[in-house]
Amino acid sequence: MAIIIDGKKISTLIKEEIKNQVEKIISKGGRAPHLAAVLVGEDGASLTYVSNKVASCKQVGFKSSLINLPYEIKEEKLLREITRLNNEKEVDGFIVQLPLPKHIDEDKVLLAINPKKDVDGFHPTNFGKMALNMETFVSATPYGIIELLKRYDIDTNGKHTVVIGRSNIVGRPISILMSRKAKLGNSTVTVVHSRTKNLKFFTNNADIIISALGVPNFLKANMVKNGVVIIDVGITRVKDLNKRKGYVLKGDADFESVKEKASYITPVPGGVGPMTIASLLQNTLKAYKINFEGSK
Amino acid sequence: MAIIIDGKKISTLIKEEIKNQVEKIISKGGRAPHLAAVLVGEDGASLTYVSNKVASCKQVGFKSSLINLPYEIKEEKLLREITRLNNEKEVDGFIVQLPLPKHIDEDKVLLAINPKKDVDGFHPTNFGKMALNMETFVSATPYGIIELLKRYDIDTNGKHTVVIGRSNIVGRPISILMSRKAKLGNSTVTVVHSRTKNLKFFTNNADIIISALGVPNFLKANMVKNGVVIIDVGITRVKDLNKRKGYVLKGDADFESVKEKASYITPVPGGVGPMTIASLLQNTLKAYKINFEGSK
Repeated sequence: MAIIIDGKKISTLIKEEIKNQVEKIISKGGRAPHLAAVLVGEDGASLTYVSNKVASCKQVGFKSSLINLPYEIKEEKLLREITRLNNEKEVDGFIVQLPLPKHIDEDKVLLAINPKKDVDGFHPTNFGKMALNMETFVSATPYGIIELLKRYDIDTNGKHTVVIGRSNIVGRPISILMSRKAKLGNSTVTVVHSRTKNLKFFTNNADIIISALGVPNFLKANMVKNGVVIIDVGITRVKDLNKRKGYVLKGDADFESVKEKASYITPVPGGVGPMTIASLLQNTLKAYKINFEGSK
Repeated sequence: MAIIIDGKKISTLIKEEIKNQVEKIISKGGRAPHLAAVLVGEDGASLTYVSNKVASCKQVGFKSSLINLPYEIKEEKLLREITRLNNEKEVDGFIVQLPLPKHIDEDKVLLAINPKKDVDGFHPTNFGKMALNMETFVSATPYGIIELLKRYDIDTNGKHTVVIGRSNIVGRPISILMSRKAKLGNSTVTVVHSRTKNLKFFTNNADIIISALGVPNFLKANMVKNGVVIIDVGITRVKDLNKRKGYVLKGDADFESVKEKASYITPVPGGVGPMTIASLLQNTLKAYKINFEGSK
């Protein structure tokens, strides 16, 4: 019977730690760290995400700005806004909420962000630094996963970690982090994906499984070995008319069955999810220290 | 009995292709692509490497400059030289031969290079772009490996590729390239390294092994399965008093025994080695097209 990894609790703890640091800064007469978020259009889900980020800033004592631009905005104008934020001394870090409207080139926007303010860690320069084991901003989900492993004191050294999925924002970066020469690393990492043959062979051999597939209940008990650590990044809405919202959130793991075999498992919701905002706040505080205090 | 992958032949072929392209450029009245190489100090091995690169430039019709700076040069002065090369319009790409003297911070030098001229592909921005599947300069050894797989028409899709080693210049980048969504990719990739337990379990399961360990004759016949493809990046001098030089070059694979089981294998020397210079020339031509012709 697995220990349930409580992402909500850990993220609350991290926010407390950040709040304490901000209070210390303020008490010394400093200004609060400042995160800006750019939202193009009024997509419901994106608005919810951004609003949560802004609310969390308030919780920890950060200043935050929400820059909501019209859906029809021209790419050129959005790029000008990014240049403005790059140069704005009072903004320590900023994010551009994805996805962007189709008439805007996401890569171009991403590349326009000053890497020193890229608290999402999506800019190639920051991604490259992460991969090369240099100091940088690690993006929210992989950062959050590493924090969970750390806070639950899960040993990753010499373990076989199987990462399901090879996306730029989860699978790829976490596979690199788990494999790098570091205390929370040193795993033998296999990345499996849509083109993998005999995926079960790999998951059955894994000491740690990090799943970012987005297929609810995909990972069954017969696909994992006893004592496995399962980090479930999948989060899918599954229709459920018994619920007021009309759906439930499901992870990639068939939770009820695999939890009997796992040693640790993250639930969905309440596992990796809550960690992403905590990571963003950690990155923003770091950006403040580098860009404003210049302390690095 | 394996097919021997002839890196020397392929690299000669690539140089011919580049030479033809340069001749076309010149015949249209263009200037030749120009590679500059910075060498600090007079280390014998480094001097040999750089001289080979310069000689290859000549072979394909590139202009080349060797900038040999004294070992005692101050970091600041080296950085100024890099800035000069960044701004020099007649230089399309340049490399700084590693290792640098200990009083110089290699990361700092690396980060000072304009990514658009970084034909070694070592700058974090280029590494990040590679990892994020964007257009960029891929560094010489992984680029050379991909070329070999391509020219020998070796199918990587859905294969289990085991990469031995996680260095920034070979193991890490080739593991990413082999796993990415691309025709010469789509492998299920496992990275094994010094901290891996039961390495043999992984190599015995591999369809493709890319070894960059640097331990001569490490990979024995009992560690691989029938039909495996072996790309041997290891190259170590092993004492041999019967040879005029006093040594022979050995790869990571115990060549004579594994070649009986492998379907393809790269010899050492003459396998991956010769490809690295070809890759550097390919990158320089690309830099020329981007920076000078602006055609991308």
